[in-house]
Amino acid sequence: MSLDEKVGQMGGIRRLLESNLSFNATKFADINTLENGNLGFGAMLNRAEDVLPIANAIRAKQINSTRLGIPYITVTDSVNGPYLAGGTLFPASLSMSSSWNLPLYEKVVEVIRDENMALGTHWVLSPELEVAKEPRYGRVGEMYGEDAYLVGEFGTQYVKTMQERDSQGYVKVATTIKHFVYGLPSGGVNTASQYGGMNHIFNDLALPYIKAITEAKPLSLMASYASVDRVPMSANRYMLQDVLRDKMGFEGLIMSDATAVYHLYTQSKIAASPADAALKAVRAGLQMELAPQQPATFPTLVDVSSSDDLAAIDEAVRQILEIKFATGMFERPLPSVSALETTLRAPQHLEAARNISRESIVLLKNNGILPLPSTNSTKIAVLGPFADIINAGSYAANNCSSPLFGSTLLSSLTASLGPSNILHVPGVDILSTDPSTSHINDAVTAAKSANLAILTLGSLSVNLEDPLWTQRTDGEFYAHASLSFPGLQQDLLNAVLDTGVPTILVLSGGQAFVLDDSALRADAILHSFLGGEFTGDALVEILFGRVNPSGKLTISLPKSDGATPINYDYLPSDDQGGPSSGVAKSSAWQFPLLTRDPPMGFGFGLSYTTFEISGPSVTEGFDEDGEQVFEIAATVRNTGTAAGKEVVQLYFRQLYSGIERPVKRLVRFRKVELGSGEVGNVSMSVLARELGYYVDMEWRVDEGGYTFYLGSSSRDEDLQSVDVVVR
Amino acid sequence: MSLDEKVGQMGGIRRLLESNLSFNATKFADINTLENGNLGFGAMLNRAEDVLPIANAIRAKQINSTRLGIPYITVTDSVNGPYLAGGTLFPASLSMSSSWNLPLYEKVVEVIRDENMALGTHWVLSPELEVAKEPRYGRVGEMYGEDAYLVGEFGTQYVKTMQERDSQGYVKVATTIKHFVYGLPSGGVNTASQYGGMNHIFNDLALPYIKAITEAKPLSLMASYASVDRVPMSANRYMLQDVLRDKMGFEGLIMSDATAVYHLYTQSKIAASPADAALKAVRAGLQMELAPQQPATFPTLVDVSSSDDLAAIDEAVRQILEIKFATGMFERPLPSVSALETTLRAPQHLEAARNISRESIVLLKNNGILPLPSTNSTKIAVLGPFADIINAGSYAANNCSSPLFGSTLLSSLTASLGPSNILHVPGVDILSTDPSTSHINDAVTAAKSANLAILTLGSLSVNLEDPLWTQRTDGEFYAHASLSFPGLQQDLLNAVLDTGVPTILVLSGGQAFVLDDSALRADAILHSFLGGEFTGDALVEILFGRVNPSGKLTISLPKSDGATPINYDYLPSDDQGGPSSGVAKSSAWQFPLLTRDPPMGFGFGLSYTTFEISGPSVTEGFDEDGEQVFEIAATVRNTGTAAGKEVVQLYFRQLYSGIERPVKRLVRFRKVELGSGEVGNVSMSVLARELGYYVDMEWRVDEGGYTFYLGSSSRDEDLQSVDVVVR
Repeated sequence: MSLDEKVGQMGGIRRLLESNLSFNATKFADINTLENGNLGFGAMLNRAEDVLPIANAIRAKQINSTRLGIPYITVTDSVNGPYLAGGTLFPASLSMSSSWNLPLYEKVVEVIRDENMALGTHWVLSPELEVAKEPRYGRVGEMYGEDAYLVGEFGTQYVKTMQERDSQGYVKVATTIKHFVYGLPSGGVNTASQYGGMNHIFNDLALPYIKAITEAKPLSLMASYASVDRVPMSANRYMLQDVLRDKMGFEGLIMSDATAVYHLYTQSKIAASPADAALKAVRAGLQMELAPQQPATFPTLVDVSSSDDLAAIDEAVRQILEIKFATGMFERPLPSVSALETTLRAPQHLEAARNISRESIVLLKNNGILPLPSTNSTKIAVLGPFADIINAGSYAANNCSSPLFGSTLLSSLTASLGPSNILHVPGVDILSTDPSTSHINDAVTAAKSANLAILTLGSLSVNLEDPLWTQRTDGEFYAHASLSFPGLQQDLLNAVLDTGVPTILVLSGGQAFVLDDSALRADAILHSFLGGEFTGDALVEILFGRVNPSGKLTISLPKSDGATPINYDYLPSDDQGGPSSGVAKSSAWQFPLLTRDPPMGFGFGLSYTTFEISGPSVTEGFDEDGEQVFEIAATVRNTGTAAGKEVVQLYFRQLYSGIERPVKRLVRFRKVELGSGEVGNVSMSVLARELGYYVDMEWRVDEGGYTFYLGSSSRDEDLQSVDVVVR
Repeated sequence: MSLDEKVGQMGGIRRLLESNLSFNATKFADINTLENGNLGFGAMLNRAEDVLPIANAIRAKQINSTRLGIPYITVTDSVNGPYLAGGTLFPASLSMSSSWNLPLYEKVVEVIRDENMALGTHWVLSPELEVAKEPRYGRVGEMYGEDAYLVGEFGTQYVKTMQERDSQGYVKVATTIKHFVYGLPSGGVNTASQYGGMNHIFNDLALPYIKAITEAKPLSLMASYASVDRVPMSANRYMLQDVLRDKMGFEGLIMSDATAVYHLYTQSKIAASPADAALKAVRAGLQMELAPQQPATFPTLVDVSSSDDLAAIDEAVRQILEIKFATGMFERPLPSVSALETTLRAPQHLEAARNISRESIVLLKNNGILPLPSTNSTKIAVLGPFADIINAGSYAANNCSSPLFGSTLLSSLTASLGPSNILHVPGVDILSTDPSTSHINDAVTAAKSANLAILTLGSLSVNLEDPLWTQRTDGEFYAHASLSFPGLQQDLLNAVLDTGVPTILVLSGGQAFVLDDSALRADAILHSFLGGEFTGDALVEILFGRVNPSGKLTISLPKSDGATPINYDYLPSDDQGGPSSGVAKSSAWQFPLLTRDPPMGFGFGLSYTTFEISGPSVTEGFDEDGEQVFEIAATVRNTGTAAGKEVVQLYFRQLYSGIERPVKRLVRFRKVELGSGEVGNVSMSVLARELGYYVDMEWRVDEGGYTFYLGSSSRDEDLQSVDVVVR
């Protein structure tokens, strides 16, 4: 291969088509000269069946009309499903993790995988293994939550299922674990820097990576935009080589985030030119550049001459070609439109989406108003700016306000109850703070007239092509200086609650919200996050008791904008410095007085039934390899009148350790389904060595005392403990 | 020396007396057995002249009645002056740094030193070299501000002046730089953990330590409470040995913070017992324990037997005795009460306090209402809960509400205008959120009646013996989940401003406040921080134009609780990730839309006159050692009608660097005094090597382009630039 041909493999066509299938042949040819290793579809609202013939033609040309005939590999984002309109639209990762249902999630990933393959997409830019420690960060909705173990479980499942081998031994879809390593941007600001410290990084942020690498061998990894301890990851040789490759054992390809190499020059200011940026990136170990926003920097690599740089390029091309071989790019036929049409949105695909939507909604409060009687014959006032929207996430191939697929809560309610039973008044728009644009009085009138209100509030996360994108306040690029509701939504809430009309508050958005004392007056509160195309249907099923809610928070909800971080697994010294007496005693923050443990914390979520979890018992033993193992058993009794699902959560704490360790950490969870009165046994075995931690990047397990906590959430009041000794 | 005698030197009597000179002989004897190296006075509101005879008797007994006759050394806090009532009460460090007047500060430190010596105090637990990067942290008022260079300048001046040698060659007062290393507690919570990363720590937090160690050789250092990257500093051998001693060259004694070793067992949970904690601390390099709250852990060291541990104890005792020799403890006579009385509050001491109070107050807004005519004949409504308080800081030996010394703003105004011209209505108390306790209507009536209001709002920082300490919301132990005004103060503000009566808002407290759009309606805003006993007088002088305000912020004021961190020297990538178009373009945070640069940022402060600073010119050259040096010159013209002082600030930025560097960094400042129409020349020389930075703990200076910015604040609109090249 010539150097030009090698460099070509290290980049690609990120945007084959713009909106409305627009194709710019000149621009394409310009880019394709030195960026021709991979192919992305571009604008995501184009319809899959329209794009596929165009993509196939381009793919065929690349194979048939180039000197070496090396095929593209199609690489796309795949956050909520395939990256073109026409696929099944799943909830965002934060919703899906809120199901705490890994077997169900496995089915979902099979669908995402199969729909991608039908498009000829054999490489996805997922999963996101960020641990959501910063509630202000706009991309929290794309993550699996604030707990490293939970993120590792869901993320590793994703990699395993996507990278399953077909009957010919080909990897079905290669995955990209990302964004190595991130989760704590300064101020929550997108692409901002984060602090270093290897004890912190290894024990919090890197655990999901280590698990996925060890157990599922993802074929690629994306370096984050962030500077970690002042060194941008795209040029961070220490993190990419010494840490990722040598300590963590990653053997796959390392790629940049979109335009991240160029940012070394324009944003981080650690490179003096695009060519300097490309060299610094390659020398740090970056092997492929994503550059949807041109100019790309890697084309400048055609001028390198040092043997070290040429060797790094050879190694990069080897990695890229290995992925193409592994995924069968040289062998697989191009996919057909007819097969695409029978695959996308197949009935069992939609059913998987319905099922995970149902389990992803979290009931945060219920004074008994829910479920509503199924024979409800009164009118319902459906209020707020999110009632007639599918808030699907910024990587969702759908329109939020006139969705191509799925139905909004308003549509679902109308279909269920009939239009005559619905009084729909948005009251305010999402973002405007201009009182003259609001119709809060109309909403209040509707509430009073109906005598039952469903009020939808939230934060919009839609793709940049969505007609409503100017109303967007969540998702990539956004950082929440306030976790209150944008615009005049809180005013609407206060006004409706002031009426005293029974009100069900439905939250929407891929983020935590601060629920103030006023909001907590609502009779019931549901958080629907970014629940996919069946959010409306699932909410109706839950509102009327046809589905019993079983989601649990995977992010904690702070009580105040300034009371962050709010993750449940804080360090013991992090809430110890307050006054030793007086009104502020035992509060980490003073005025308002708040502890590190929020009332609605990680793992919390209500049901229409009640579960009684017995005190856990522990059996100590040794496994076949002679390793010490703890078997923690408990019984769960459905003590209510409805069938339901409970997530049994097992946490642990080490009594005294070599470095500060969290006050508790999730180590297992199990979702069980029980009929009314039914009793289930849950048993979870944990190896003693799983209770260890990293010190200076080495895993260590201390002998001595540990406590397991078992229960229905991370809150102390929901847990029972049992002590063990590691020998 | 026996092991018991050695261990005894490593601790001390922290609280000789409780309130009202109470002395518990049994408790004293118990502690003194194995903690007898140093002496602290205890309760700070005891009067100096009452304490001294008691202390002297104890001191004499220790010399005369112990086997070795090793004297105590008296060690006390000294944040605002001597640690007993009766000394001159200076403003807190945050106030004093707001003067930006180092020569004046030098005079202040001379007073603090001399008053301490009159008490026989030859070792102080100051200065605090924390860089105030976390506005929620309650101890910000004890710090010199958010900029590492400014902190280094003030802190090093403190060490130099305190440790000046007397005519016999003795160090006058030994200093303790502290708290190594801190500034960024998790969530702003007191004693909470902080992240690691040596590029971050060295380029931000450690710079003042490196400067003080290199230029002023402080005799001791206090390890912080914090875990840094999960390892509590009291047991952090890497930070104390490899970093502090080996890389930073610190040769003095290392002590614990109060009760911090015990916290390894009770809070951080990295030690399994007090004895284990003591061993871990000694092995990490801690040489002296502060334990005002018994039990202490170091007395358990009498049981150690390993040669390494015994050697560490020997080295610790050597360090302690060296400080005693250096400060003349074996030679100096005990101080006399008569000398004490002529020293404390000597007229020139009070004048130094007055002068720095005058320059520490920052004028944040003025629509022309200030200065008030000196012939003001109308009444003034003096409102708010801080009008009749001296808010002096949590280490101030004074009462806030019935001060032993000094006068409140209300007293000063009354003295100046006569009681008949003052309508004093607090309106609300500091903290209560119960509307039934407030008298906002009375305040509104007073404002309307007077037609001029001075409204005082803030956050109380007083010592724990103060009668009002239950109203405290600031200072050690406190963390601000909200930077708004506590209690109903904002309601009072809104109500007064709603009247339209001209209103001057006076802020009080050692912290930043969020000033919302409502607050910004005030006609003038002054921040008085924790201004010492002459705050009231200085405010009156400024209000009526007898003193022209010249303070400048040393902490930036955020615009929202969630819009932090807000320091001016953020990294370039930290505000780059927002949307590329639309209403939120170029904002780091969205909703509210905010950038990283606050309108009232570091270095900002107004005057009653105006200054015009000419564009800076630069002369390049080489100094006598052949080092490249830049001479940056500018002229400053007082273009207004009043004499005044301007702080000329010089910042710089490197164009492209090896790791991310701040968007700007302070490198010099100069305060100049100019009469109306007068022109001054300012010239500041900077060595090229000062423009470097730390990478992996090594200093590095890059060749290439740099920009200097010169002007009156850190805000872009207040700066003019000039480019240079380092060769």
